[in-house]
Amino acid sequence: MIRIFGDSISGNCLKVKWAAERLQLAHEWIKIDILKGGTRTDGFLALNPFGQVPVVQFDDGRTLSQSNAIILHFAEGSDLVPEDAFERAKMLEWMFWEQYSHEPTIAVRRFQKHYLKKSDDAIDADLMAKGRRALGRMEMALISNDFIAGGTALTLADISLLAYTRMAPEGGFDLGDFPAVHAWVARCELELGLAHLHEVRHV
Amino acid sequence: MIRIFGDSISGNCLKVKWAAERLQLAHEWIKIDILKGGTRTDGFLALNPFGQVPVVQFDDGRTLSQSNAIILHFAEGSDLVPEDAFERAKMLEWMFWEQYSHEPTIAVRRFQKHYLKKSDDAIDADLMAKGRRALGRMEMALISNDFIAGGTALTLADISLLAYTRMAPEGGFDLGDFPAVHAWVARCELELGLAHLHEVRHV
Repeated sequence: MIRIFGDSISGNCLKVKWAAERLQLAHEWIKIDILKGGTRTDGFLALNPFGQVPVVQFDDGRTLSQSNAIILHFAEGSDLVPEDAFERAKMLEWMFWEQYSHEPTIAVRRFQKHYLKKSDDAIDADLMAKGRRALGRMEMALISNDFIAGGTALTLADISLLAYTRMAPEGGFDLGDFPAVHAWVARCELELGLAHLHEVRHV
Repeated sequence: MIRIFGDSISGNCLKVKWAAERLQLAHEWIKIDILKGGTRTDGFLALNPFGQVPVVQFDDGRTLSQSNAIILHFAEGSDLVPEDAFERAKMLEWMFWEQYSHEPTIAVRRFQKHYLKKSDDAIDADLMAKGRRALGRMEMALISNDFIAGGTALTLADISLLAYTRMAPEGGFDLGDFPAVHAWVARCELELGLAHLHEVRHV
């Protein structure tokens, strides 16, 4: 059985949980409390020298970290990964972009506002500007496509980007300004059997 | 023929060039001058709405961006990608880590110091601390392995991480503190037929 070490306040961890559930992989969720320093203990660092959740451990003891690398490993050969080589490349394009341009702005602002309870004045103004630019980039893609990588079915790129986009309102981002993104969040939630998070808008 | 739009001052662009050369893919290099605003023209944004180099265009007009997504597409089925599923996953783990934890610290500090000519005092001190932590993480892996993903042959993870690690001295990072990384840089340069960049240490 796959052991997933994660914290449900982390979108990166939720990606792994959702992918495992969608693929019906037998797994055990082991909670690591980020806010209480769970990723900085010696035991955890022995498991994952990167010092980050999520990390997964397989029956043979081997471990794998980095949310997008994990879900790619889980989903290889499944319908979450397009068969066509170019479509697969577009999926990966969005997944690398997510880690470079989306997570470091939207997830970071959400963490500072929602968990560290910083006031807007105390948060680097760049995070709002860059986060809105990231949402705008998604809006551009989703105006003409149901799913982010351009195909007609949910892929890992949707799972990857859903995690923090869905929580963006907790970071002060108004998804009402990005209607195609907003509709896509609801579409992905339905597809993955998740509850709507709309009530947290304008937190 | 594949058209690669890039600037050789960008490690992200060099990854794509090195992979294309290694795989002997017929390609044309089209220079986009980052420092002169080449990625912000209307023409370039029409090609790549992400507004970043590298971007590649195939004969049918389709485009692909994000350096790691591009090299994965180029190298699929080649010896730069391990056949074993878990080894492939470890390669991807390092590639996602590169974009999240390595490039945003080492490449950004190098750009500010070497191209924007900022003094050390004017550069966010976090970049040095986090960049050194990233190099330390690589050192830990390379003490017992010739290549970063743990196998006995060069993979895309090496190409990806080599780009900015090799230029780290231009960002003020002393590779003398990371001897296994330093030896790995030389090993990868040899493997890829690149000139040594050692003379730029301690710039």
